[in-house]
Amino acid sequence: MAGKKVLIVYAHQEPRSFNGTLKNVAVDELRRQGCVVAVSDLYAMDFEPRATRNDITGALSNPELFNYGVEVYEAYKKRSLASDITEEQKKVQEADLVIFQFPLYWFSVPAVLKGWMDRVLCQGFAFDIPEFYDAGFLKDKLALLSLTTGGTAEMYSKAGVSGDFRYFLWPLQHGALHFCGFKVLAAQISFAPEIASEEERKGMVAAWAQRLKTIWKEEPISCTPPWYFGQ
Amino acid sequence: MAGKKVLIVYAHQEPRSFNGTLKNVAVDELRRQGCVVAVSDLYAMDFEPRATRNDITGALSNPELFNYGVEVYEAYKKRSLASDITEEQKKVQEADLVIFQFPLYWFSVPAVLKGWMDRVLCQGFAFDIPEFYDAGFLKDKLALLSLTTGGTAEMYSKAGVSGDFRYFLWPLQHGALHFCGFKVLAAQISFAPEIASEEERKGMVAAWAQRLKTIWKEEPISCTPPWYFGQ
Repeated sequence: MAGKKVLIVYAHQEPRSFNGTLKNVAVDELRRQGCVVAVSDLYAMDFEPRATRNDITGALSNPELFNYGVEVYEAYKKRSLASDITEEQKKVQEADLVIFQFPLYWFSVPAVLKGWMDRVLCQGFAFDIPEFYDAGFLKDKLALLSLTTGGTAEMYSKAGVSGDFRYFLWPLQHGALHFCGFKVLAAQISFAPEIASEEERKGMVAAWAQRLKTIWKEEPISCTPPWYFGQ
Repeated sequence: MAGKKVLIVYAHQEPRSFNGTLKNVAVDELRRQGCVVAVSDLYAMDFEPRATRNDITGALSNPELFNYGVEVYEAYKKRSLASDITEEQKKVQEADLVIFQFPLYWFSVPAVLKGWMDRVLCQGFAFDIPEFYDAGFLKDKLALLSLTTGGTAEMYSKAGVSGDFRYFLWPLQHGALHFCGFKVLAAQISFAPEIASEEERKGMVAAWAQRLKTIWKEEPISCTPPWYFGQ
């Protein structure tokens, strides 16, 4: 939709990968609609994943007993967070929709993207106590996980060896995104592209591009337990 | 138990933190039993979390289209993985029990520990296709997650705002540890130490030390869906 702003947080090492293609078609389709699209290419940026004392540029509140969460919260309020964090926070602040594009690593995001979540979505910026879940500071924004898996859709079914895919989505969609207030759109899961045929891969890319054409009309999913799991 | 080998993978920035204390009492109690205990102190090691081309010291199989999983699998077989990975793999290989000690970040492990999982537990070393889950290569080993939370036990109950704690444990216990074959012992969750009284914190530390006294007699939990969730 013309004028909407989108941030794509992208975590793949290879521009010519299937994840790279999914990222590219999203950029293309959203720009075609007139959206303003920014991309954080985490590996290309060599984005720092570790949450350390370096994230605070000024003096610490308590240098004797380093508490990352407390210090980062204080640094956010004093505007003394490391610049790589504040630059990402600016991009998030401007975005109407944040898309995360990544391959599933151990039922979760790759560490470089986990580090983006750990460091960028800090207290004061993304939430406060008790401003979290529906009251989180990012509550006027949408978020969407677009991911590829190694396993097949059958493996990620309720009776499959890896269990319902909603089980692994839970910590990301509810524990991280919903906690910050994001309205979460249904995940786009491209199952097992590495063992799919070229035709099937093209189908998955086309399905993603097609979905993005009407993305602004979608309703968010419910992240409320235990209904989330269909119980 | 005398002669048993334990690896503690520890992810906290501050030695004097509650997580640091939990790590220390585990080292002390296990050594008192006559166990050989190694600690991987990930922040102190400045452990690299990002999964990149640098993890392969030799030539790539396909430099035109970098596929991390494929390249690391080949490098494992050719013994050309980066030394920080192989050193951790040696520690895992020698261990009878691996304990992960960390604060919960976004319903999961901190990025530095996610990076340890992403990089160390590679195909060829920890699993192969189809040697995974019960057939994973680490099937003669035990694993245990010992973690602290920000939220209270009530928040992490089935009817609580954050849902049953088993929901967030699933990707770690089943998706990562069980996938590699580990027999998983029940998680040790120290809820909300930051808002607990000094007496309550001491109680949590004592409970952990006490549990470790009989840890070698414990039976692993079942990681099989959907029973895992008590359904």
